[in-house]
Amino acid sequence: MATITGEILVGGEAASGGLPGIRATNPKTGAPLEPAFSFADEADVDRAARLAWSAFDAFRESDLETRAHFLEGVAAAIDDLGDALIERAEAETGLSRRRLGIERDRTTNQLRLFAKVVRAGEWLDLRIDPPLPDRTPFPRPDIRLRQIGVGPVAVFGASNFPLAFSVAGGDTAAAFAAGCPVIVKGHPAHPGTGELVGRAIQRAVADAGLPAGIFALLNGAVETGTALVRHPMIKSVGFTGSRGAGLALMSVAAARPEPIPVHAEMSSINPVFILPAALAERTEAIARSFVDSLALDSGQYCTNPGLVYAVEGPELEAFLSHVEAALALKHAEAMLTPGIHAAFDKGVDALASHPDVQVLARGRDGTDANATAPAVFLTDATRFEADEALGHEVFGASSMIVRCETIEAMLEAAERMEGQLTATLQLDADDIDAARRLLPILERRVGRILANGWPTGVEVSHAMVHGGPYPATADSRFTSVGTLSIRRFLRPISYQNLPAELLPAPLRDETLPALIDGVRRG
Amino acid sequence: MATITGEILVGGEAASGGLPGIRATNPKTGAPLEPAFSFADEADVDRAARLAWSAFDAFRESDLETRAHFLEGVAAAIDDLGDALIERAEAETGLSRRRLGIERDRTTNQLRLFAKVVRAGEWLDLRIDPPLPDRTPFPRPDIRLRQIGVGPVAVFGASNFPLAFSVAGGDTAAAFAAGCPVIVKGHPAHPGTGELVGRAIQRAVADAGLPAGIFALLNGAVETGTALVRHPMIKSVGFTGSRGAGLALMSVAAARPEPIPVHAEMSSINPVFILPAALAERTEAIARSFVDSLALDSGQYCTNPGLVYAVEGPELEAFLSHVEAALALKHAEAMLTPGIHAAFDKGVDALASHPDVQVLARGRDGTDANATAPAVFLTDATRFEADEALGHEVFGASSMIVRCETIEAMLEAAERMEGQLTATLQLDADDIDAARRLLPILERRVGRILANGWPTGVEVSHAMVHGGPYPATADSRFTSVGTLSIRRFLRPISYQNLPAELLPAPLRDETLPALIDGVRRG
Repeated sequence: MATITGEILVGGEAASGGLPGIRATNPKTGAPLEPAFSFADEADVDRAARLAWSAFDAFRESDLETRAHFLEGVAAAIDDLGDALIERAEAETGLSRRRLGIERDRTTNQLRLFAKVVRAGEWLDLRIDPPLPDRTPFPRPDIRLRQIGVGPVAVFGASNFPLAFSVAGGDTAAAFAAGCPVIVKGHPAHPGTGELVGRAIQRAVADAGLPAGIFALLNGAVETGTALVRHPMIKSVGFTGSRGAGLALMSVAAARPEPIPVHAEMSSINPVFILPAALAERTEAIARSFVDSLALDSGQYCTNPGLVYAVEGPELEAFLSHVEAALALKHAEAMLTPGIHAAFDKGVDALASHPDVQVLARGRDGTDANATAPAVFLTDATRFEADEALGHEVFGASSMIVRCETIEAMLEAAERMEGQLTATLQLDADDIDAARRLLPILERRVGRILANGWPTGVEVSHAMVHGGPYPATADSRFTSVGTLSIRRFLRPISYQNLPAELLPAPLRDETLPALIDGVRRG
Repeated sequence: MATITGEILVGGEAASGGLPGIRATNPKTGAPLEPAFSFADEADVDRAARLAWSAFDAFRESDLETRAHFLEGVAAAIDDLGDALIERAEAETGLSRRRLGIERDRTTNQLRLFAKVVRAGEWLDLRIDPPLPDRTPFPRPDIRLRQIGVGPVAVFGASNFPLAFSVAGGDTAAAFAAGCPVIVKGHPAHPGTGELVGRAIQRAVADAGLPAGIFALLNGAVETGTALVRHPMIKSVGFTGSRGAGLALMSVAAARPEPIPVHAEMSSINPVFILPAALAERTEAIARSFVDSLALDSGQYCTNPGLVYAVEGPELEAFLSHVEAALALKHAEAMLTPGIHAAFDKGVDALASHPDVQVLARGRDGTDANATAPAVFLTDATRFEADEALGHEVFGASSMIVRCETIEAMLEAAERMEGQLTATLQLDADDIDAARRLLPILERRVGRILANGWPTGVEVSHAMVHGGPYPATADSRFTSVGTLSIRRFLRPISYQNLPAELLPAPLRDETLPALIDGVRRG
């Protein structure tokens, strides 16, 4: 069952890619893992894209039950991998078995949730404007609208979620639900995990009787990804990763003869606003939960709380002491890759040696390879504003606390923020007025606003937005988590006076939800 | 009532722009029209953008009734302009009073339709995922989603719809409905018409008690438009016009420190597929209605049928004769501007002198300035494929008929098409099988598929899509006509565990339609 051969997966088969590739590395030990993975060359990319293109029409017109059942089949095939999947993911990423088990459940639940979405049919956005033959000066024709998939989607997974944001992660689930074939550019930080999941998808495709071309997994280097985004038969891109890599893919996509959207989820420091009454009332509890959220899994979350605003005073000094104490109990753990670890070290060193920044606290050193103690820094609003580098993301367990002289200074700082995935309010009843002033500012700059929680832990549900204004994502009108994320991969098409026998099946199905002349049916 | 001063309109007032500008021209006579219009300079742009930004929060939180009433107020204020509006538009564009009257009704109906959309609240896309405090391993928080406006929108109107795609046209109506302030870059082909409508909007803003900053009208040159798209407080762009101008704005928007979307509706030749049974049965009727659609208002429509495919044979030869006869009855009429007329002449001359193209028929000359007789050209599928320039849009009454050897050749030609706004099928009962093969190809390439009609005449309704894959538009996932066009200017935001008193009003209103844990309410 749990074969890992190091091959690329194309057209329902496994084959050696045209280029030599890599071995995975255990980040905790630095030891290489077997087997070697081959990389896809341009011919492999072309073959996968052509197969995806020729499978597209059949897949997008598959009936809702077939498609939903297929998504559930992918979930079941992942479950069938059992411990072998968790063990390989642990070896490749250094993440704990507990965390990986939770992430696997999130991944399969996400696939099953999208199956429900497919069946419910809201995503089809059916609209029917009946004809008005007697209208003057012109009769109105019969017009009907549905959403269809945009075409084959290239998915670039993230290193920090080897299951939930990777081969069968959110982008893949949403694209499949939309009826789009998916070609995954495998992440080199967890190729074995990727192959196991990729083979599970291949089995589910075959079991569902769908065309094999709707899925491929290509390991590769940067050139492989570039070739994929450039391919004329690829019509959209889902990406989760660094700002640099995201902007590079956006440039490639914009320079195509036919530009395509890149849904890049890139960079966010997820500001937390601790309002005065909450700071006074829950000083220690907020400090402890902040440090827990910050240090969880070496802070390797897109929604890690990397920035904290609070108003100066004795309550803040007490809070800082509690943060120091809590952080002293956290020890360094292996980060996902040597590259991520090196970038963290570089970012933390730059802040530590910055003349306007004070090192508030560090955690303890650890024994793993690729591990650096978590860090919390301190500055004030004026100094923070003076150097925009202080607001750049340091991926990992690093956070900056910004002392504000007044609530007004905090509001002004909020007005200067870049786009973010999230903003968090710590507030008590006496903070409501201040929160009311802060909210409209935050609404213009973030995709999700939380109260009295922490941004890590992104619920996969109908109302979730994991997105936000640039540079958090490339396009704030979409989310990459939650059922609304299907909309990234859909486009509307309308049919005017088409004979009934030519209308697509969903537009002939009176049981599906629809807007009839603007009024909801079903 | 119908004052035209040549001023720019900013912040509820009229003022002279910082740069000298232009006079409008009557295209039928070439005569200049009074008064002179001043152009906005960078300071004017900055002032308008800052006013829009500071009005944004209040406008986007205005209650649905206020916003709907405002849209109806704009419609009423346009109606109040009476004949003065039609007369000025006729003088500036050369379009007929009848056509302009119909276009005015379309414009005000569109505003009133968006008022209904605002009240119905579907656009808010409300989603509530109730908390699950007992769920393991983690409880689910309370998560609620709504859509909010993206921010101030720059609107670039089109010359060919001085009312329906201009100052109070579809982009403006959709942006206002979404709660976004609008700054219109006035089109230099109809500045007086624009000012009349702009003043009507100003009156409606004041009557509704909304902040004056939500609307501005800036006349200007290319630099004015560029400054507007570059301004950091502008968050989206709506554009209808040429491919060159659209691509230029897209470049400016992509090069901003914070890139923003440009909804450019650019270029389409709207292929028509005349299937064999229809061609045989309705030879003359199709030829006549084709020529009527082609020559209407000098062919100055984005949806003009610029390309016709049919299978060779005696039926096609008969069809060509009928086209010749019908076109001979059409005479040249003034085009909208000397620039558009010159471009039409250039395009038509290039086709007429192309070695692989035959001039099938020309209409009659006319007496107006800026008028050239409509033209229909003929080639075959092989020659058409050999030179992609033959598939470029010639804006105006020019169309290319492409002879295909077989239905298969027609399908292959369809597979090679660029993205288009529309595709039209002329079909009878015996053509259903051929149409069934053509449909999936067209669905991948166009936004609207029509049967037995003509693409000109775009209904403003719930199920309309006026969009399509690049280069028809910049992003095929959106439409610029119909109520779904509001989605261009909205982004989702979610609220997690927010105290009820801080939740935005729509998320506290249980009468609005919403998805509750994925199931529809209301």
